[in-house]
Order: sequence, then C-alpha cells, then structure tokens
Amino acid sequence: MTKTIAGTNPHTGQPLPVVSAVTSEVEVAATVDAAAKAGEWLASLPRRDRAALLRTISKGLEGQRESLIAAAMQETGLGEARLGGELTRAVYQLEFFAGVIEEGSYLEATLDPAGDTPMGHRPDLRRMLVPTGVVAVFGASNFPFAFSVAGGDTASALAAGSAVVVKAHSSHPLTSKLSHEAMATAATDFGAPAGLLGIVYGQRAGVELVIHPEVTAVGFTGSLGGGQALIDAIATRQEPIPFYGELSSINPVIVTAQAATERAQQIGEGLAASVTGSAGQLCTKPGVVFLPAGPAGDAVLESLTKGMAEAAVPPLLNRRIFESYADITAGWEKPEAATGDGVTTEYKASPTSASGFFVSPAIYSVNAPDVQPHLIQEVFGPSSLVTRYASQDQLSTALAHVEKSLTATIQHGNNDPDLEPLTALLLPRCGRILFNGYPTGVAVSWAQNHGGPWPATNSLHTSVGATAIRRFLRPVTWQNAPQEVLPEELRDGYAEIPRRVDGTLTIPASA
Amino acid sequence: MTKTIAGTNPHTGQPLPVVSAVTSEVEVAATVDAAAKAGEWLASLPRRDRAALLRTISKGLEGQRESLIAAAMQETGLGEARLGGELTRAVYQLEFFAGVIEEGSYLEATLDPAGDTPMGHRPDLRRMLVPTGVVAVFGASNFPFAFSVAGGDTASALAAGSAVVVKAHSSHPLTSKLSHEAMATAATDFGAPAGLLGIVYGQRAGVELVIHPEVTAVGFTGSLGGGQALIDAIATRQEPIPFYGELSSINPVIVTAQAATERAQQIGEGLAASVTGSAGQLCTKPGVVFLPAGPAGDAVLESLTKGMAEAAVPPLLNRRIFESYADITAGWEKPEAATGDGVTTEYKASPTSASGFFVSPAIYSVNAPDVQPHLIQEVFGPSSLVTRYASQDQLSTALAHVEKSLTATIQHGNNDPDLEPLTALLLPRCGRILFNGYPTGVAVSWAQNHGGPWPATNSLHTSVGATAIRRFLRPVTWQNAPQEVLPEELRDGYAEIPRRVDGTLTIPASA
Repeated sequence: MTKTIAGTNPHTGQPLPVVSAVTSEVEVAATVDAAAKAGEWLASLPRRDRAALLRTISKGLEGQRESLIAAAMQETGLGEARLGGELTRAVYQLEFFAGVIEEGSYLEATLDPAGDTPMGHRPDLRRMLVPTGVVAVFGASNFPFAFSVAGGDTASALAAGSAVVVKAHSSHPLTSKLSHEAMATAATDFGAPAGLLGIVYGQRAGVELVIHPEVTAVGFTGSLGGGQALIDAIATRQEPIPFYGELSSINPVIVTAQAATERAQQIGEGLAASVTGSAGQLCTKPGVVFLPAGPAGDAVLESLTKGMAEAAVPPLLNRRIFESYADITAGWEKPEAATGDGVTTEYKASPTSASGFFVSPAIYSVNAPDVQPHLIQEVFGPSSLVTRYASQDQLSTALAHVEKSLTATIQHGNNDPDLEPLTALLLPRCGRILFNGYPTGVAVSWAQNHGGPWPATNSLHTSVGATAIRRFLRPVTWQNAPQEVLPEELRDGYAEIPRRVDGTLTIPASA
Repeated sequence: MTKTIAGTNPHTGQPLPVVSAVTSEVEVAATVDAAAKAGEWLASLPRRDRAALLRTISKGLEGQRESLIAAAMQETGLGEARLGGELTRAVYQLEFFAGVIEEGSYLEATLDPAGDTPMGHRPDLRRMLVPTGVVAVFGASNFPFAFSVAGGDTASALAAGSAVVVKAHSSHPLTSKLSHEAMATAATDFGAPAGLLGIVYGQRAGVELVIHPEVTAVGFTGSLGGGQALIDAIATRQEPIPFYGELSSINPVIVTAQAATERAQQIGEGLAASVTGSAGQLCTKPGVVFLPAGPAGDAVLESLTKGMAEAAVPPLLNRRIFESYADITAGWEKPEAATGDGVTTEYKASPTSASGFFVSPAIYSVNAPDVQPHLIQEVFGPSSLVTRYASQDQLSTALAHVEKSLTATIQHGNNDPDLEPLTALLLPRCGRILFNGYPTGVAVSWAQNHGGPWPATNSLHTSVGATAIRRFLRPVTWQNAPQEVLPEELRDGYAEIPRRVDGTLTIPASA
C-alpha cells in the first residue's frame, strides 16, 4: 500500500517528488474535529465579515499565482494560459460568492407575522437557511484550481458558513497542498481558527472523511465509479448525508440540416476547438455530435477534422485517463467495430510525443441507425463520435441511447423548423441547453446550472454558480422567538437583504 | 396474501367493508404511464392555468366534505371537529399553493445577459426551475386529509407541475378513495387528461410504484421503518431518485426554572393538550419534557397530569399503533424499568373503552442522569416522558440522548438567563424551534419548516409550507436561447414575477 503521495509528470510519465504522507485515520478525525470547531466560529460570523473572509482567501490565492501555476503545469501537463485562466476563475469565484452572501437572497429570509388564517390562528414564524456543518470536498483531476481545493465546492461551502475538509486529488497533490496553504494562511491571517479549511491525502483518507459523523455533506466532481465508491461508503453511515456528485456527461451536440447548410465551416471549427480544448478533458466536452447525412453534414465533418489537425493538444492528465482513452479508442478502431458496429475512423493524428501521456486525437463516425448504447460513453481525451442521421426519426431514436447529460446543444439555422421540436426533445435530457454554442466553458454566474439528470449528477442542484451554495444549507423556522435569539436577518426592521414578509417579497431600498 | 383492501373501525377493532382490490403490477405501471402522459400536459400548462386547476381541485374536495369526513371518522376514530379542521387545512393548502405559483418566486427565474466578466466573455444565461416529472406520494395514517391523498405532498407536486400517483394508506383506504375521486373528477372537469392524479392500493404496489422508471421523486410521511423499506427499494433502481421522508421525531420541550416558577399551571395545561390532542398521534407531539427538579417543576407536573385526566382521548388509529403503544408503555411500567432505569409512572388513566383501539393516557418520569437512549423513543399515543433536571449540565447531557427532531421547544421566563444558551443548544437539533408554545399544530405558510436533521427527515427540505414545492423541481439553464423556445417567464420583458436580472432582484411593479 502506498504510504506517500506524489504526482506524475504527464509529459514524461515520470513520478514527481513526494508531497505528503498518506493521512492516517487519526489525522483525518483530528482534521474534521478542528473543522467542526472552526465551523462554529464561521457560522456565527456576521455575513459581511464572512464575505470579507472570502475576499481575503481570494487574495491569498492570487498572491501565490506564480508557484500555483508552476506546480499545476508540472502535475497536469496543461498549459500556462489555460491554468492562468482557471486560477483567475477560482479567484473570481470566491469574490463572486462574497457578493452572493452580501446580497443575502440565498438565506430565503421569510417572516410570517402572527395572525388569523383560513386554517386558524398562525403564530409568528420566521424561516431562513443555516449552514449544515463540515463539508467534505473531492476535487476533479481536470480542474486543479476551479474544481479542486480552491474550487466552487469549497467557495460555496465557506460562503454558506460551513467549514471544509478537502481530499487532495492524487493527480495534483502539490497544487492541492499549495492551494490549501495559500487559502488557510489567508484565513488564519484574517482571524479564522486553524482548521477552517482542512486537507487530507490518500484514497482511504477520503473514505474515512465521508464516514466521519461530523461531516454533513459531500461535494464531488469525478467519475461515476469514484462517486459510487463514496456513495457506498456513505451508505454505511448511521446518519445519512447528501452526496452531491457531478459524475458523467456525454453532452450531445445536434447540428440541424439548416445549420449545416448555413454554417458548415464555422460549426466544424467550433466543434474541433471544443473537442480538443484541455485535451478533451472537460466534463462538458461534446462526446457525440449529430450531423445530417449528405453533403452539408459532410462539410461540417470536413471542417471538424481539419480543425482537429490544427489543434495543439497537450498530454492527458494522468495514467488512468491515458490508458482509458487508449482502450476506448482502440475499441472503436478494431475491425469488428467497423464491420459489426459500423464505426469508421474519420480522423486520427499521431500523438505529439511518444513519451508521457500524449495521445492521438481522433474523430469516429457511425450512422444513426447503428448507434448502440455501448458505443456512446464518456471519454476523457481529444475525440468524439459523429453520428450521421438521415431523418428526425433516426435522430430521436439514436438520441434515446445517449445518457442524460450536463448539457445538450442545438446548432440551428435562421427560422429553423427543427428548433422547437429539438428543444422539447433535449430539455428533459440535460441541465443546460445551448443554442449555436459549444458546451465547454461554464461561466460562474447567477443563472448558471452545472448539473443534470442522472447520471450527469445525482441531485437537483448545481455545482457552479450562485445557487451552488444551497447544497450546504438547511432550513430552520423560529416560532414566536424573542428578538434577541433571532439571527439579525430575521429581526424586526432588518432591511439590508431581500425578505418575504407576510407573503410579499421586499427588497432593500438601496437596491 | 391479502388481495383486498379494507380499513378497520378503531372504536371496535372490527374490519370495515372492502374498498378496493390490491393494485396489480400491470395496473401500477399503467397508472404511472398515464400520470407521465398527463404530466406533460400539466408541465406545459401556463402557470395561471395551473393555479386555476389547483383551485378547482380544492373546490372539488370541499364539495365532498360530508362524505369525506364520514369516511374518515369511521376509519380513523378521530372526531368530527378535528377531521373538519384537517379537511379545511387540505382545501386551504391547495389554494395556498395556487397563490405560490402565481407569485412565481419559486421558479427562481434568473437572467444573466451576455457580457464581459473578470473570467472572460459570458454568454446569455437564463435559469429557472422545471418540474421533475411523476411524483409518488405516501400519506400518513394520522392525517387522512392533510398528509394523505389530498395533502401537502400532492398539492406541492401538482403546483410544481408534476403529476402524482398516491399509494393509499392502509389505515384509511375509503377516505383515500373518496379523496382521489373528488380531486380527479375536479381535474377532469377542468380539462386535465385522466391519470393526472393516480392512486394504487397495497404495500407491494407501493414498492412497484417507487421503482417505476418514470417516477422521479417520492414524498413520504410515516415511520422510519416504513421509510427505510422504500429507501431500500429505491436503491435497486438503475436511476436514483430523491426520497423525501418525514420519518420520526421526539420533539423535546424544555421548561426553564424561571418558566416553571412563573407559569407552572399554564405550561402543564398546554403540555397536556399537546400530548393528548389527536390521541397523541402527531409527529410533533412532545415525546420528552424536561422539567426542573424541585417545587416549581413539581407544580408543572401536577398541572400536566391534571390536564391529562381532563382530556377526552379518542381510540388510536389502527392495530399496529395500538399494539406498539401498549408494548412501549408496558416497558416503562415494568418493575425493572423502575428499579433499573429509574422510570416512575406519574399518571395513568384507564382507557375510555375496553373495545377497539382505546388506550391508557400516561405520563412517566425519570431523573435526567438516568436518561438512556433506549428510554427516549417516538411513541404514537397519549403519553410523554418527563425528565427532571437539577442543573444545566444534567439537561444538556440528557438532551444529547434525544435524537434530532422536527421541533424543539423552550418554555422560558421574562429575561430568562437560560434562553440564549438553550437556543444555541437546540438549534442544531431541530428544524423548527419554538418559544413559549407547543410543537403540535403546523401552520401552512411561507415561512413554515416541517423537516429537520436525521432521523426527523432525510433531506434539507420541508414537507409543509411554500418551499415544499422545491422538492419536485430541478434547475435548467438556457444558453443563448432564441426567445421563442424560452419559457415565457424567462423571455425579455416578462414582468409578472420576481426575477433576478444581471444579479439584481426585481419585483413586479404591481407588487
């Protein structure tokens, strides 16, 4: 059993220096206990001060930009521009959540004064959301900043008022350690108790984390298999807790006949960029692209393969992803796949380098009537399966074999008759529906939704955007409470946040 | 195996006429399929029309008041006034949710216009909540209207835009059948497709219901054991779905020394009414009452037992509850309980009648240092366990043995030094905290929360009040969508509901 934690350089496949020992069971418990204690401090911190804390942590991260990016480049193989943009996103995200909690709607503050109702006398009832307690966070390999230690789960949990313990991803332990140090130091400088943001290393430590009685929720971004292992561990707890998993996504893109006729080249180029960006290791990468049969669809495919050839593709993140990509694409390339499943290799490039985790970008195709569920699976890496359809019936039948996803995209034309029926077809199958866009790129904003029907996620929540905070809050109602024991946001006359009073939503005069 | 469904008269213990055959597996599937189809109609119904539908269903229920109450009296043993009030509540609840969806905040409509952000260009993003699809509802024995076919789960699911299939409670099948007929007829008269509200009978049918692929969520009010059986069935599904269970609750009431000194008689009377109301078969019944040791606490106890003696207590709802009550109270009365556990029988009355499911109202007591977890359990029936404490330490130690609950109550005095520390102690242990009140009685309103930490419920949601609707909704974001495919609530210029636009909450001018 591994006793130490170290990353691997994706450019060479060689191990990097040891970052940490595996966290022992005793250390996991101590980390969670410290977080629980620090969490009490955080939960009682006035909302404005909590926003200031998030901004301080954000600055702490920004202050370590150089060392963080250097570590991430070494551990992930991703380029400097890509990682720089991602760190900016993580820094911005903490500031964004500071704004969300200052605005205060997320509390859902609601006051029903005592009075008579058709069902009799009603006491004074006041409701708002309160933090659940310690949150465990499991980051993803593909976003060492924005979905890891410094990511959205951590930011939204801290914003909610819950302490966090992160399980460092095995693929970027040094980046995780440095992120944690930057954030924890900033928090301590702000005046937070030590332990407000904890970190543990090793797979077993992750399991111990989710079964710890003080942990109240788990935020997870990763594979369905990894998620299922944690779900199984959580099922052994005496007290069930929510597991918010972002797990798997195919992200179908449908190009209508009219769109292919109007914009073949542009759509092909956009798809190539979306399939190859970050070496195709994004949970919203288009995994299957529906193109019409015939010349217009051929033109999109031509532009797509041309775009693939022009893309610079870094190595994959780690050995597991590298081997999985090789296995799955080899399956599509077998003679049996061509004869039995009707899969054609439309494009395949040599890897940029024979060392490390570089792979061959590739595009495969199949005719819609030949689509079988086993052909359509999530692949991390620069490839996609083009599906050619000759009718709307062929399209909808094939689409039924595509598992529900985080996103679904329609590339449509002007006054396109296919637009409305396709929207109705795709809406039940995704959490974000895009029009004339590409699903990669997930803005952090109020209206964002990064979640979807199973198996995209296992919950009715988003892990990106303002409402991600809702996962780590629970409702409480105070009945006939004296003013002095109410949270300030529920007291008479508090006018700094939107509140619902006797059924009517009221917003601050200054807003 | 039982092939037919019939209730039992709690006054006599004798079976009532057969109401229905057990629903077969084929019939369950057909019921869900019809609901799924009707649900598509409901989901596409404009919000105002859906509100009108709820009001029509409400009127349909009201129109059958006489027959509904007659059936419920026969099947539940509860009195006419109590059942009349409950039916009024169910009728009001449907109207309340009509208002909730007209107001429109529940959609969380959010528009982020395209523009530049610190993390780069943001597309146009518009988010709101959409119905999840068919909801399965399992009512409770103790509320044949307000937590059954006509109850809050059904009302909130229909309000969300989801069709409903109810599993009729075995304790009141005729009431369930008549409720269903009244509501379904009203819906059909309104123009709804048949099947919008389905009903199935029999335990096995309930299991088949929750594993049906088209069912998207389960609302349940009942026992921890019954809930666990459904959770286990749901775990066998390919696609996981949320189970919203309201399961178990002890509802501790703490009387401070000062409160006992100031208001002994009043508190005792209030407690007696709360313990005996509906024969103590309410999920918010005070299961444990903490009284200070000494004369002031003695005076509360005296008033409580006096109040118990004056209460008219109907028979229990069914044989299972009747036998369980007899078992648990017999355990407290055993000589070993007195010697080993220190339990004293403070008060015990004879049952009003020797036939049927009438039982002996009773009050037991124990000293706080003797409290063991096994002594404190949820009991449906007119009894409570008084726990005498001689110090705040004794109180908090004993309280740690009380499982987290739907409610927790503090009876406090004027300028009571115990008020603030007790509030802090109880807040993490409940979903509703009451001051100088009694936990029974749950108003349907905007600020209500009827839910709590495990094992009170297994979710971060309420099953009563406006936000109960949130359980049956999921978020979707539209990215760069043409106006014509957007729901009307997300289109440019729609001004009839509160919306967040570019981060700022806006409310309709008329509000």
